Amino acid sequence: MTGAQCLLQTLVNGGVEICFTNPGTSEMHFIAALDRVRGMRAVLGLFEGVCTGAADGYARMAGKPAATLLHLGPGLGNGFANLHNARRANTPLVNLVGDHATYHLRHDPPLATDIESIVRGFSGWVRRSRSAADVPADASDAIAAAMTPPGRVATLILPADCSWEVSREPAPAPAKPRPRPVAPDRIREIADLLRRREPTVVLLSGALCLEEGLRLAGRIARATGARMMGNRVNSRTQRGAGRVVIERLPYPIEPSLAMLRGTAHLVLVGSPVPVPFFAWPGKPNWIVPEECRTHVLATPDEDCLSAMSDLVEELGAPGDVSAVYPHQRPPLPTGEITAGKIWRALTALMPENAIVSDEGVTSSRDAEAWTFGAPRHDWLNVTGGSIGQGLPVATGAALACPGRKVFAMESDGAGMYTLQSLWTQAREKLDVVTVIFANRAYKILRGELKQMGIAEPGPKAAATLDLGNPDLDWVKLAEGMGVPGSRAGSCEEFADHLRDAIRHPGPRLIEVIL
Amino acid sequence: MTGAQCLLQTLVNGGVEICFTNPGTSEMHFIAALDRVRGMRAVLGLFEGVCTGAADGYARMAGKPAATLLHLGPGLGNGFANLHNARRANTPLVNLVGDHATYHLRHDPPLATDIESIVRGFSGWVRRSRSAADVPADASDAIAAAMTPPGRVATLILPADCSWEVSREPAPAPAKPRPRPVAPDRIREIADLLRRREPTVVLLSGALCLEEGLRLAGRIARATGARMMGNRVNSRTQRGAGRVVIERLPYPIEPSLAMLRGTAHLVLVGSPVPVPFFAWPGKPNWIVPEECRTHVLATPDEDCLSAMSDLVEELGAPGDVSAVYPHQRPPLPTGEITAGKIWRALTALMPENAIVSDEGVTSSRDAEAWTFGAPRHDWLNVTGGSIGQGLPVATGAALACPGRKVFAMESDGAGMYTLQSLWTQAREKLDVVTVIFANRAYKILRGELKQMGIAEPGPKAAATLDLGNPDLDWVKLAEGMGVPGSRAGSCEEFADHLRDAIRHPGPRLIEVIL
Repeated sequence: MTGAQCLLQTLVNGGVEICFTNPGTSEMHFIAALDRVRGMRAVLGLFEGVCTGAADGYARMAGKPAATLLHLGPGLGNGFANLHNARRANTPLVNLVGDHATYHLRHDPPLATDIESIVRGFSGWVRRSRSAADVPADASDAIAAAMTPPGRVATLILPADCSWEVSREPAPAPAKPRPRPVAPDRIREIADLLRRREPTVVLLSGALCLEEGLRLAGRIARATGARMMGNRVNSRTQRGAGRVVIERLPYPIEPSLAMLRGTAHLVLVGSPVPVPFFAWPGKPNWIVPEECRTHVLATPDEDCLSAMSDLVEELGAPGDVSAVYPHQRPPLPTGEITAGKIWRALTALMPENAIVSDEGVTSSRDAEAWTFGAPRHDWLNVTGGSIGQGLPVATGAALACPGRKVFAMESDGAGMYTLQSLWTQAREKLDVVTVIFANRAYKILRGELKQMGIAEPGPKAAATLDLGNPDLDWVKLAEGMGVPGSRAGSCEEFADHLRDAIRHPGPRLIEVIL
Repeated sequence: MTGAQCLLQTLVNGGVEICFTNPGTSEMHFIAALDRVRGMRAVLGLFEGVCTGAADGYARMAGKPAATLLHLGPGLGNGFANLHNARRANTPLVNLVGDHATYHLRHDPPLATDIESIVRGFSGWVRRSRSAADVPADASDAIAAAMTPPGRVATLILPADCSWEVSREPAPAPAKPRPRPVAPDRIREIADLLRRREPTVVLLSGALCLEEGLRLAGRIARATGARMMGNRVNSRTQRGAGRVVIERLPYPIEPSLAMLRGTAHLVLVGSPVPVPFFAWPGKPNWIVPEECRTHVLATPDEDCLSAMSDLVEELGAPGDVSAVYPHQRPPLPTGEITAGKIWRALTALMPENAIVSDEGVTSSRDAEAWTFGAPRHDWLNVTGGSIGQGLPVATGAALACPGRKVFAMESDGAGMYTLQSLWTQAREKLDVVTVIFANRAYKILRGELKQMGIAEPGPKAAATLDLGNPDLDWVKLAEGMGVPGSRAGSCEEFADHLRDAIRHPGPRLIEVIL
C-alpha cells in the first residue's frame, strides 16, 4: 500500500469517515486512494475556508473528527480563519496539508512556503511525515491528538513522496484519550462554596451545554440559587422546549458588565475566564468584576461532565431543575421585515430537532429571546470571532446529521467570505435552509465606530462599511451555485418561502431585505 | 493627530495612495482617518484575498506600493494566498494588519492569534508598533522596506491603541532605496561569455520584461545569438506589436526540459534558477541540464536594467534587435468554442495598450502562440502558483491604469476562490472584462494525476476534480455582484459579446462553455 492508502485506511480505522478537500498536485495520491480504500467520503469545497469550516461543523455535531485535505501553504492560508474558529471551539479536527516531495522542497519552487509557521496559530499538535513508512503512525497520532480533550486541531504535513511511496500496514484505531478526572477535593470545595449561597455564576462550556450537562446545571441552579451561564462563543448549545435555560454572555461590553455586576464568585467549568472581544478607548477591558473571586471546578481538558455529576451528588441536589424552555410557538409575524420578526417566524415554523448555525451578527443580537418557545434544536455559534463560518459550519452539520433540518442564519457581510459553501450544499444535496439578513452593511462596524468614540463617520469611512452600491443579489448568487433562491419583502412572503423550504428537502436560500 | 492619522499621512507622503481594505473593530480609527487625511483612496473588498491580490496587481502596473488593511490574524489568513503570490512577484506592498490593543492581548480574546508567525511566510519585513508615537517612523520604514529592490511585502502590525492614541508628526517620504550596482567585472565576464557564442540562455525577470529592458535583451540576442527567456511566473511582461519576443518556460516538466536541452550556459538577470513547480515520481525534479553552467549577471536586488545596458555597451551591440512581435491580427474564429479560439478572438479585437491578467490555467497553455500578432499589451501572471489571483490582480491593475482595458482571462475553478472581486469591480466601475473558461473541472489536476502515474481515476477521485454537478452559472454569479454577464455558446457569440464589452466601459463578464 502507498503512504496515501495507509493514511486513508488509518483514518477510517480511527473513525474519521469524511474528508473535506480542495486538493492540488501534491495531494493526487490521496485522491487516487479514495477509490482504493473503503469508508471515506470525500466532499469537495471550491475554497478551502469552506472545507475547514465544514469540518468544524461536522465534528461539533458528530462528536468525532473529520479530516481536511489542503494544498500546501496557500491552501492552508485560505483555510486559516475557520481553523482559528475551530481551535476556539475546541473542535477535534485532523488537518492534512500536502507539501512538496521531501527532496524537492530545497529548490524553493513557487508554491513553497513555511507551512510550520502558519499552522502554529491554530494547531494543538503538528507533525511533518518524514517518510511513507512513518505515515500510518503519524496519522494514528494525529487522530489521537485531535480527540485529546477538549478537542484540538491536529495538523499533519504530508510531503508528496510520503504519499506515493510504499508504506507499511495501516495503523489500528488509537485508544480514545480520556479527560483527566477532577479530584474529589475540588468537588467538595465548590460544593461548600455553593452552599454559602453568595451571588455565584457558574460558567459552562463544551459538553455542559448539551442536554445531559444542562440538566445537571439546572439541578445545581435549583438547589443552590447559582446562576448558570455560557460564553457567547460556545461551540454547540442544546436549546428548546423542555431543556434547561442558561444565560449567555452578550457581545457588547456594557451589558456583559451589567450581567456580572455584583457577582461574588465565578466558577469555571471547562471555560476560560470570559473577556471582552475587544478593548475600546476609555472602557474597561474586563468583564468579571474586580471583587469577584474565580474558582475552577474543571479545566477544559478535565472531565467536566463527571465533575458536574459529582457536584450534584455532593450537594444532594434533587431532580428538579431551574427554568426550562417552554414549548410555546409565537404567532407568525406579519408586515414589514425586521430581524426579530424573521427569528420569530423561524421559531413558529421550526421543525423538531433542527440545527441552527448562527452568524446573523447584528441581526442575531437578541436571537436568544426571539427563539424562546422553539422546539428542541442545536445552536452553533461563531467561536473565534472570524466571520465566514456560518455557511461552512451549516454544511458540515448537515453532513453529520442527515434527516435533520439545518438553518444557516447569516448576515450578508459574513456570508460573502465563504459563499462557495452553497455549491457544496447543492452538490451534496444537503438539507440546509440559508436565510440571508441583507442589511447591506457591515452594520456591526457602525456600532464599533461609536464604541471607539467616533460619532459620525465621514463619507469615505462610511463607504468602507457599506455593502450597497451595488446591492448584492443573493438569489442570483445562490442560483449561480445550484441552490434555489428566493427573496422575501414581507413577513408573509418569508413565512411562505420558509414553509416551502422546510417541506422540501435539499438546499434553499431566502434573502430577506432589512 | 492620532496614530492612525499620522499613519495615513505618512503613507500618502511616501506615495502610497490607495488602500485595499476589509476592516474590523481594531481598524476603526484608520477608517475614521480616511476623512481627515487627503489623498488616500480606500477600496473595499468583501474578502481579504481580493484586497491582497488587488494590491499586488496595482503595484505591478503602478510601479509603486499600495497598502492593504486587514483585520487581525484571521483576516490576514484570508489574505495569505495572494500575499504569497505577491512575494513571488517581488511586489512592493505595505501590508497593514490591525491587532488588539497592546494591553488587551494578554487576555487572549477570541480573535487573538500569533500574527507574527503567520506573516513570516511572505513578508520581507515585519514590525509591530509599540506605541502611537512610533507609528510614523514605523510606517515610513515599512514603505522603504516595501520598495527595497526588487520589492517586498512589508508587514506592519498595528495594535488598536497605537491607532487611537495621540502620536507625533507624520513622517516625510523615505528615501527611495536604490538597487545595488553591478560591478563592471561581472559585466565584462558575461560579455566575454556571450562572445564565445556557445549555446546560452539569458533568463530575464522584473524590469527586463518591460519594453526598455526587452529592447536591451533583443539587442544582445541579435548581437550574440544568445536566447532570451522569461520564467513562467514573471509578474509583468510587455508584449505585442513591435516589442521584442522572448521565450517563456512552460509549466510542464517535459517541454521545459526540451526547451533548455543542450544549453551550455544559463545567465541569470534578476531571476532565480528555474525549477519545476512540483516533483513527479520517476521524473527529474530540475529543469536546467546538469552540464549547463549557471552565471549571474545581476541578483534580484541589483540594478538589472543598468547591468543589461552596460552589457549592451560592453558588447558594442548595434541597435537592431532580434525578433519582434508582428502587428497581425488573426481572422475572427468561428463555430465551436475552444480555448485557443477564444484567445484568437481576443487577439483579433484587443484594443491598444490593454492589460491581460492570465489565470486561464489549462486554457492558457498556448496563450503565447494564440496571442501572437496582438497590439501592445501588458501581461500579468500567477506568480506563486496559488490560484485565485487573476480576478483580484485585474481589479488592482484597473485601478492603477484608468483608461486602459483590462482582460481577466480566468478559469472557472481558479475564479471561484476570489469571485468577490467582481463586486469591487462593480462598485469602483472598473474597466475589466472577465472571460471565464468554463471547462467545469480542475482540468489541470486530471493531467497531474497522469503525471503522478495514475492513469484512470476512480469515481470518487474523479468527483473531487469535477466542477460540474451542479454546473456553476457565472452569469448569475456576476449579476449577483452587480457585474453584467453573458454566456457565449459559439465563437460568433463570443465575438459579439467581446466587441460590446470593449465598446462600453465598466466591468463585464463573459462565460464561455468549453
